[in-house]
Amino acid sequence: MATASRIPHLLILGLLLCALRPLVTHAGKLLVVPVEGSHWLSMVGALQQLQQNGHEIVVLAPDALLYIKEDSPFTLKRYPVPFSKEDLETNFALLGHFVFENDPFLIRVIKMYKKIKKDSAMLFSGCSHLLHNKELMASLVESSFDVVLTDPFLPCGAIVAQYLVVPAVFFLYALPCGMHFEATLCPNPMSYVPRSMSLNPDHMTFLQRVKNALITLTEKVACNFVYSAYAPLASEVLQRDVTVHDLISSASFWLFRNDFVFDYPKPVMPNTAFIGGINCLHKNLLSQEFEAYVNASGEHGVVVFSLGSMVSEIPEKKAMAIAEGLGKIPQTVLWRYTGTPPSNLAKNTILVKWLPQNDLLGHPKTRAFITHAGSHGVYEGICNGVPMVMMPLFGDQMDNAKRMETRGAGVTLNVLEMTSDDIADALKKVIYDKSYKDNIMRLSSLHKDRPIEPLDLAVFWVEFVMRHKGAPHLRPAAHDLTWYQYHSLDVIGFLLGIVLLVAFISFKCCAYGFRKCFGKKEQRKKTQKSKTH
Amino acid sequence: MATASRIPHLLILGLLLCALRPLVTHAGKLLVVPVEGSHWLSMVGALQQLQQNGHEIVVLAPDALLYIKEDSPFTLKRYPVPFSKEDLETNFALLGHFVFENDPFLIRVIKMYKKIKKDSAMLFSGCSHLLHNKELMASLVESSFDVVLTDPFLPCGAIVAQYLVVPAVFFLYALPCGMHFEATLCPNPMSYVPRSMSLNPDHMTFLQRVKNALITLTEKVACNFVYSAYAPLASEVLQRDVTVHDLISSASFWLFRNDFVFDYPKPVMPNTAFIGGINCLHKNLLSQEFEAYVNASGEHGVVVFSLGSMVSEIPEKKAMAIAEGLGKIPQTVLWRYTGTPPSNLAKNTILVKWLPQNDLLGHPKTRAFITHAGSHGVYEGICNGVPMVMMPLFGDQMDNAKRMETRGAGVTLNVLEMTSDDIADALKKVIYDKSYKDNIMRLSSLHKDRPIEPLDLAVFWVEFVMRHKGAPHLRPAAHDLTWYQYHSLDVIGFLLGIVLLVAFISFKCCAYGFRKCFGKKEQRKKTQKSKTH
Repeated sequence: MATASRIPHLLILGLLLCALRPLVTHAGKLLVVPVEGSHWLSMVGALQQLQQNGHEIVVLAPDALLYIKEDSPFTLKRYPVPFSKEDLETNFALLGHFVFENDPFLIRVIKMYKKIKKDSAMLFSGCSHLLHNKELMASLVESSFDVVLTDPFLPCGAIVAQYLVVPAVFFLYALPCGMHFEATLCPNPMSYVPRSMSLNPDHMTFLQRVKNALITLTEKVACNFVYSAYAPLASEVLQRDVTVHDLISSASFWLFRNDFVFDYPKPVMPNTAFIGGINCLHKNLLSQEFEAYVNASGEHGVVVFSLGSMVSEIPEKKAMAIAEGLGKIPQTVLWRYTGTPPSNLAKNTILVKWLPQNDLLGHPKTRAFITHAGSHGVYEGICNGVPMVMMPLFGDQMDNAKRMETRGAGVTLNVLEMTSDDIADALKKVIYDKSYKDNIMRLSSLHKDRPIEPLDLAVFWVEFVMRHKGAPHLRPAAHDLTWYQYHSLDVIGFLLGIVLLVAFISFKCCAYGFRKCFGKKEQRKKTQKSKTH
Repeated sequence: MATASRIPHLLILGLLLCALRPLVTHAGKLLVVPVEGSHWLSMVGALQQLQQNGHEIVVLAPDALLYIKEDSPFTLKRYPVPFSKEDLETNFALLGHFVFENDPFLIRVIKMYKKIKKDSAMLFSGCSHLLHNKELMASLVESSFDVVLTDPFLPCGAIVAQYLVVPAVFFLYALPCGMHFEATLCPNPMSYVPRSMSLNPDHMTFLQRVKNALITLTEKVACNFVYSAYAPLASEVLQRDVTVHDLISSASFWLFRNDFVFDYPKPVMPNTAFIGGINCLHKNLLSQEFEAYVNASGEHGVVVFSLGSMVSEIPEKKAMAIAEGLGKIPQTVLWRYTGTPPSNLAKNTILVKWLPQNDLLGHPKTRAFITHAGSHGVYEGICNGVPMVMMPLFGDQMDNAKRMETRGAGVTLNVLEMTSDDIADALKKVIYDKSYKDNIMRLSSLHKDRPIEPLDLAVFWVEFVMRHKGAPHLRPAAHDLTWYQYHSLDVIGFLLGIVLLVAFISFKCCAYGFRKCFGKKEQRKKTQKSKTH
């Protein structure tokens, strides 16, 4: 252990560093263009810290709010959109039912395609209404913001930043179809960087690498139907030709809610930072209601069950199967569920409309976490060291679940096929097989062992971009190359051309020399031969 | 500005964080396998901090010491080597003379090749003596170290780490021939990542990219003559077949003394951290002697002049030209020079055997820095915001100088061709043209604006590797692929094969169908035709 005599020096250093930091940070103006749902929730902690640091936070919020609170501590700039809060809620509820429908694969794909297309069109219309709101946009121009903070999952914030000519910081978990790799020009060799929704690990078999390659080929166009509409909209607003790639590669800095305890190691770019676990940091004491539930659970403790912010009710039949499974374990289950309570709900299962997930997971009596394996939930499970039973529903959740399962920190269930026994067995496994707890605790200790807290890192980089009006020294020169220049195809072609030219000239010279040396002899021989005939 | 009311909270946070850190860090045992010269000097600060954190530091030091002090605060484990301190000094002195010899290019290359080969052979013999010192190696095995900290510029430390089966942390500026890219498997596209000694920027013209490509082709083999001897030595010691690539790719973590204020932005790997400027942090008050020099300089201030730890004397003729140039400016010049004082030394020039470079550069009266543009010097210039006149001598110094010049923070002189007027003009330019000071101050402010101090970052990662016995979760899976698997050549071949097979079968089917449909008709036509004839 370190000697105690050093502590006074470190205390003074701590005092100095911490006392000086706020004095050198000039208060600035930050415009947030959020994406609703869990995307917004993940950002709030960083915004609160930035506000505490003295910055003015303005959030562009549509009239139809879901998780952004009307009485938010931030300044909300509202704008009308052609949909209501109820439309958003209906869409989320439909998603909850849709993912539990047991249709054939092709039908599911078509239905999913239609749903994404419809939802995207709605969100796009919101963006279009914002950008065409001349009064609001003019007021934003006048406000002279220092930075735009946005989730590029919808490129609306990127368009706003370009319109205002203000540097943008992107805050995200990932973009669909690996678009964030292309946008940051970060190399991601398909031989060991698993593609999203591939379920591949980083150490792949030959066939897994073939699958990875095929996904790589398709993902160049797969997300086009969602994003393509933003290019003409941006071109119209910015009055110049802009592609979707231009929009999302415009960020000064990228804050990824990820780390290499959960994700597989891969190349990264200098204008990116990894802030996985940022949503675990703020812990509150449990309310009396939840404290009472946990205390009443006895020696067996509790299981926390939530399928995330988007899915809070599911079809009755599935809910009953789950309820039956939950009834088979001795733990108290706290289930976030807003639908009609299943008729077979066991005594140990308590339905709640909302639960303080991170606070509950941090309680020492929490034995397991049933989750849809969204990135927030998974990181909260890792931070708090709670083994998981995962019911991935859509998007990246299958990959997330696979990763945790591969690391021995959880068990994945197929929501379409799982029976009540499967649920009970999985819970018993992660609760009573010590290896699950050991593995999640190992991941937790690695995850929490970092040189700087993710919240501080996020706040630092947002303030950095504000202080320096961007971060151009961190932007790779690759952004200014064409695709063939980036891959050096012109240089390779040129050098190959020279090699071929030299080879051709050498060959010609040799051939000429050969003819000169031997040609005459042969001719002489021939002449002699003809003479002898 | 942030409100003052927050400061008490931050102070408490600072107190808590800083007070807790040393309590949770277990004291460990750290083996240092250093490389002499400036490589050692750059490491000392981190070692001191690690020692202060309660770790035991053992340094493997040859009998012939140069910069490693006999009365070092660390435990030195000495071992005999077949060369003396004087041999090392002679070699360094020869280098000082060699770089100033104005031979034709080819002669210089041959001479440099011979010198590097000779010096490498000497250093290799030191490594061989260490590894064959059975008593010492056995005592190291018994000591049970937690980590080996080494500069992989010589792969001796990597062999020791593998012999002891202890994780290694590499501490370096860069490896020659870009070997660190290959060792970390970090992508470095030749289209925008300038190769070492290319003098290229990151935004390259077509011809610069051609040059970059040609260097890329040659650097695969260019350093072979220095490093190839280590493979059989390691194979013998470790009793298994080992390549140089295996040795230097074995590190658990890489600490690069670099950052993206000085270097151009490029991809990086998760098991690397950038600690450029680590050597600027420790500042001391000037001694009475230097304080007196600086105070006596009046309003004009001082110029600090050092050609680094390796070159402290130069040929007389060149020294006289420099002395003449230095005499033409009103500033006091403090010149680190151990050779015979030039006879024409002006009154404003003071020769010293050694100077506290970083402390002098940090003095507000310092107007300019004449440097060989080694990485230490350049970073000290950046940290302290002192514009530079650069006289690059060898290795990466030409690139370093070019980078600072491109950023408008210094002027480069050709040491072989420069006249006394060139020196005086360059000094006047960087001192009186305000843009140089502005540019270096801009770089300095960017460089110092970081979420964590480089020393803390270096210490954190060394302790991390000690705590977790390595950092396998940060090591990319790419290390377990063959070169053709890494580039997915097998997968591409397989998929191309399938495409060709499908195309071939489709063609055959079409041809068969065509023959079936039209073949008969044609036959019929032919038959009819022949009948009509």
